[in-house]
Amino acid sequence: MFKISPLFKGRYRGIMKIVNEKIQKLTAIFHKLPGVGPKMAERLAYHILHLPETGIKELIDSISEVKSSVGFCKMCFMPSEKEICDICSNESRDHTVMCVIENVKDLFAIERTKKFNGIYHILGGSISPLDGITPENLHFNELLSRINGTIKEIIVATNPTTEGDITANYIKELFGEKQIKVTRIGYGMPLGGSLEYADEITLTHSLQSRKEL
Amino acid sequence: MFKISPLFKGRYRGIMKIVNEKIQKLTAIFHKLPGVGPKMAERLAYHILHLPETGIKELIDSISEVKSSVGFCKMCFMPSEKEICDICSNESRDHTVMCVIENVKDLFAIERTKKFNGIYHILGGSISPLDGITPENLHFNELLSRINGTIKEIIVATNPTTEGDITANYIKELFGEKQIKVTRIGYGMPLGGSLEYADEITLTHSLQSRKEL
Repeated sequence: MFKISPLFKGRYRGIMKIVNEKIQKLTAIFHKLPGVGPKMAERLAYHILHLPETGIKELIDSISEVKSSVGFCKMCFMPSEKEICDICSNESRDHTVMCVIENVKDLFAIERTKKFNGIYHILGGSISPLDGITPENLHFNELLSRINGTIKEIIVATNPTTEGDITANYIKELFGEKQIKVTRIGYGMPLGGSLEYADEITLTHSLQSRKEL
Repeated sequence: MFKISPLFKGRYRGIMKIVNEKIQKLTAIFHKLPGVGPKMAERLAYHILHLPETGIKELIDSISEVKSSVGFCKMCFMPSEKEICDICSNESRDHTVMCVIENVKDLFAIERTKKFNGIYHILGGSISPLDGITPENLHFNELLSRINGTIKEIIVATNPTTEGDITANYIKELFGEKQIKVTRIGYGMPLGGSLEYADEITLTHSLQSRKEL
């Protein structure tokens, strides 16, 4: 059953009858997408109405195509059309170093640096007890099953947030006994940043990870 | 042929090979929607990948349904499933007063006040020579053909922008000789606003439209 969110009830108060029901429904569906607020959802719905047939077809076909043919790599959980993605199946990459990240965009960010030639493991998020996300909801079991003696170092590259910290500590505990080196990427002042405007937590991290010159 | 926008070329520089092509295409299509930037488009595309089948079906069906069954009222150009919309065909509304607006959201805004019981005409935008939008691109011919002796007053409710002003003046010229009263809604200080923070143009309008107490 289709139900209008309370947000739209306020927005459509008194004019419910003149706003087309199908457009209302489409607006509500767009509103469920991440980062799409009520006004944006409304704008998109009316845009659909003005799009030519070819534009609609292109949009729908592309959505169906992604959903039907793109899955996730069985090893690292990167979106891929193959069972094993191009990175995991690439023999020229270093399969002894594994970088553990929260999501695929973090992978892209690291790949852009061109400084990492190992393999990845995407957890699918970070441990967040407040949001009910426990290690069971993330790809930890699959991570454990990938540790087969080849891996010598796990680089934890979770975000510098409370959840990212919890996740990093959890990984440390998980592999602490297994003779595998677990490291975490350095956090501190961003390059080109100004001390004057840095927040205290970043600066604290920066001080803690100081190096001798 | 599908082409990646230059914005994404920068974003995917060096990692083109590992970003799935179908996701790249969907991202580019989302990016064409109004108000959707490159990051948002990317976020939406990856969200599609994680949506369950039912969610995808709901989205696609709703888009197709809107496109196939909702059109525009032949009279006022409001989105409607009927040839003549509920407002234009409503005999209890005052068909002697017509409010001319830029788009359907302006109609909703006016309907929400519950102070207008006349009919509407949606132009589909405002005259903007810089963007190449001339009266021929808007529903002016249809507006002229609706003036049949019944209409006694045209209330112009275009936005208080340069384009809205041009459009209002054009309407004034169009009907100046036809013995039809053309009015424009009042512009000035918004209720609850503070003089201190009002911009000069609003305040100028406010002074010009002063009334005796």
